[in-house]
Amino acid sequence: MTATTVEQELHGANERFYQAVESLKLEQMDAVWSRDAAVACIHPGWRMLRGWDRVRRSFEQIFQNMPHIQFIITDVSVGAAGDAGWVNCVENIVTVPGDAPQYATVHATNLFRREAGEWKMVLHHASGFAPGA
Amino acid sequence: MTATTVEQELHGANERFYQAVESLKLEQMDAVWSRDAAVACIHPGWRMLRGWDRVRRSFEQIFQNMPHIQFIITDVSVGAAGDAGWVNCVENIVTVPGDAPQYATVHATNLFRREAGEWKMVLHHASGFAPGA
Repeated sequence: MTATTVEQELHGANERFYQAVESLKLEQMDAVWSRDAAVACIHPGWRMLRGWDRVRRSFEQIFQNMPHIQFIITDVSVGAAGDAGWVNCVENIVTVPGDAPQYATVHATNLFRREAGEWKMVLHHASGFAPGA
Repeated sequence: MTATTVEQELHGANERFYQAVESLKLEQMDAVWSRDAAVACIHPGWRMLRGWDRVRRSFEQIFQNMPHIQFIITDVSVGAAGDAGWVNCVENIVTVPGDAPQYATVHATNLFRREAGEWKMVLHHASGFAPGA
């Protein structure tokens, strides 16, 4: 497998994660994440959630309270070492929590591990940056 | 190499990073980080910095303006896959920018890659969480 292929695979895994969030369907998230007990997720401004059960519950709650969310992903970089791969990107987020759309911009570190040939998410760390930064 | 050894090595690499920050000595940071062009660093509230030159310059500026910084690291978890390893932790930070100490609490994702037998940092992503979260 060439380095380019691994990079393309990681771009694909990253896109599937954001498509899963946009879908607001928990079963799409189920397909994205590893079941490892050590998976971790930091939503912007939240404390770290550890373990798939907690991570899944957080997305369940987010999906229940989110009628619409859309991502425009920019500033993507990809790294890999063996069966681990990571993607850094900027999430330009549009949500429509009420009548009017809201915009947010967030930095994300997404870490994947290859499990039985498939890149599974083991870590999602998202954080906002100060306005003007 | 057993899994336990890799975990211990990653704990050690993580500690060396925080010791390097506490030392306020750039040459200690030089020893911690990979020279890969793809290294990335997100300081709390900052935009992402990509590339060793920029990352190094950020620590240079921080060190010049920081008379004292101390970390108490808690909530450490470690994962690994081959030549990549990652540490998640909470940084309980004491700084003394002026006359009085200041306290901050930050989540960190620290990613390392094994290069010539040594774990080198390739990514540091730190972010605060909302008070009360």
